[in-house]
Amino acid sequence: MNLELKLALCQMQVVDNKNLNVKKALQMIKESSKEDVQLVILPEMFNCPYENSKFEEYAEYMGASPTLKSMSSAASKFDLHLVAGSIPEKTDEGIYNTSFVFDNQGEIIGFHRKIHLFDIDVPGKITFKESDTLKSGNDITVVDTELGKMGIGICYDIRFPELSRIMALKGADILVFPGAFNMTTGPAHWEPLIRTRAIDNQVFVVAVSPAPNNNANYVAYGHSMVCNPWGEVLSIAEFEENIIYAELDLKSEQKIREELPLLKNRRSDIYHLIWDK
Amino acid sequence: MNLELKLALCQMQVVDNKNLNVKKALQMIKESSKEDVQLVILPEMFNCPYENSKFEEYAEYMGASPTLKSMSSAASKFDLHLVAGSIPEKTDEGIYNTSFVFDNQGEIIGFHRKIHLFDIDVPGKITFKESDTLKSGNDITVVDTELGKMGIGICYDIRFPELSRIMALKGADILVFPGAFNMTTGPAHWEPLIRTRAIDNQVFVVAVSPAPNNNANYVAYGHSMVCNPWGEVLSIAEFEENIIYAELDLKSEQKIREELPLLKNRRSDIYHLIWDK
Repeated sequence: MNLELKLALCQMQVVDNKNLNVKKALQMIKESSKEDVQLVILPEMFNCPYENSKFEEYAEYMGASPTLKSMSSAASKFDLHLVAGSIPEKTDEGIYNTSFVFDNQGEIIGFHRKIHLFDIDVPGKITFKESDTLKSGNDITVVDTELGKMGIGICYDIRFPELSRIMALKGADILVFPGAFNMTTGPAHWEPLIRTRAIDNQVFVVAVSPAPNNNANYVAYGHSMVCNPWGEVLSIAEFEENIIYAELDLKSEQKIREELPLLKNRRSDIYHLIWDK
Repeated sequence: MNLELKLALCQMQVVDNKNLNVKKALQMIKESSKEDVQLVILPEMFNCPYENSKFEEYAEYMGASPTLKSMSSAASKFDLHLVAGSIPEKTDEGIYNTSFVFDNQGEIIGFHRKIHLFDIDVPGKITFKESDTLKSGNDITVVDTELGKMGIGICYDIRFPELSRIMALKGADILVFPGAFNMTTGPAHWEPLIRTRAIDNQVFVVAVSPAPNNNANYVAYGHSMVCNPWGEVLSIAEFEENIIYAELDLKSEQKIREELPLLKNRRSDIYHLIWDK
């Protein structure tokens, strides 16, 4: 495991044109690579508008995906690891919201299919029912990379403290959440959730949103953010399309866990958090 | 269950004199009662300085406690429910950090013995090892009151998301945390933890701290706070000794849970949170 890790969060604006989205992602990866980053992260649904009516049209099979092929080439060409936000992934059983993780040779070393589907109905503010068109994944994902162990969740997955806790107990050093909160839930919940997952589990948390597109039906909140294991915001974007950078001091995690031994002090004799190993 | 609940958080300064502390608590309860509150909450260790060397001296048996007797009388006299922060509770097996809950007849209707003991060692900033002198409780506490179901945790208990989640799953409408964060952990973690427990579990969260006493070895952070189930801060104190008030609209909890069904959307087929029922 590296002890210092420089990463880039690409808060790109997603439009209703797959080619333009992939092109924008490639531009931002290239731009990031000039800053000597080892890890680049894209937002949720970076190649597709976040709309139920679009997922089918934009979806690609993992084994035959022009989007993933481009991402693989970029990871390899620029010699960096890449968490490729998410895309609608076509399979014979349906469409998943899936995040693919590439190493710096462009190999897929892991993927996460969103396990909590987002169904919300705040009258007059925001209504969205992801489960109308998407299937939910069933696996908790921690990817062992050369840069450290990365737990991957997608957007709504961050709302369930059980998942982040389990990823930390499975050894994740960094939790990565491509996510697209909206203009109702974003201002209310985005920052406290990200900070508290970091504080509770004493891990780095990285959350990457699309920049808001006011022409879209679903307007993302932006505010991509990196938190350290003490819950401090190391870097945060605003609403604009932008790349933000952070350097993670991975050894600080160990120090904080010695000073305030939260994971050790859990009362696993009173409560038990169990999952399929 | 009432649908509207008015409560008072007594952010009292604790000094090294039990009689003065109890007197101060009684004054603040009386003062609160003038505002027609149904529930009053005192801070952690409200009758005793938060120091390992003091717990033994200040501890009292539940059945023979002058402090609890005074609290019982006040609850009954002023016709209000009272979460009496916590006191060092003497038992034959050792001392617990215990919160007692009184109904408006002055009866003890529940108590919580802190289950996570606070052991921290941040060199040069804060070192405290509660487990040197205190025993840990072993029960999760949700008290069914006329005002609603109250989950009770004490201070460090709030750091463990499993506990708050379980209290919510057991039906708690309000989580009450008497707590004394310090000048290192307070500014860093107090507010995001309180807000996120509310956001995750869609419950009201009430946290009551002593006011800082700069003559004490352990300086509390203050900032007693009430959050609603959307994670909004309804009322917050600063550093000063003060009573703050809030009115809880308990039916809003149900509305938020319908709009954003977090507790229903948990993937209890993938992860299981288990406790002794």
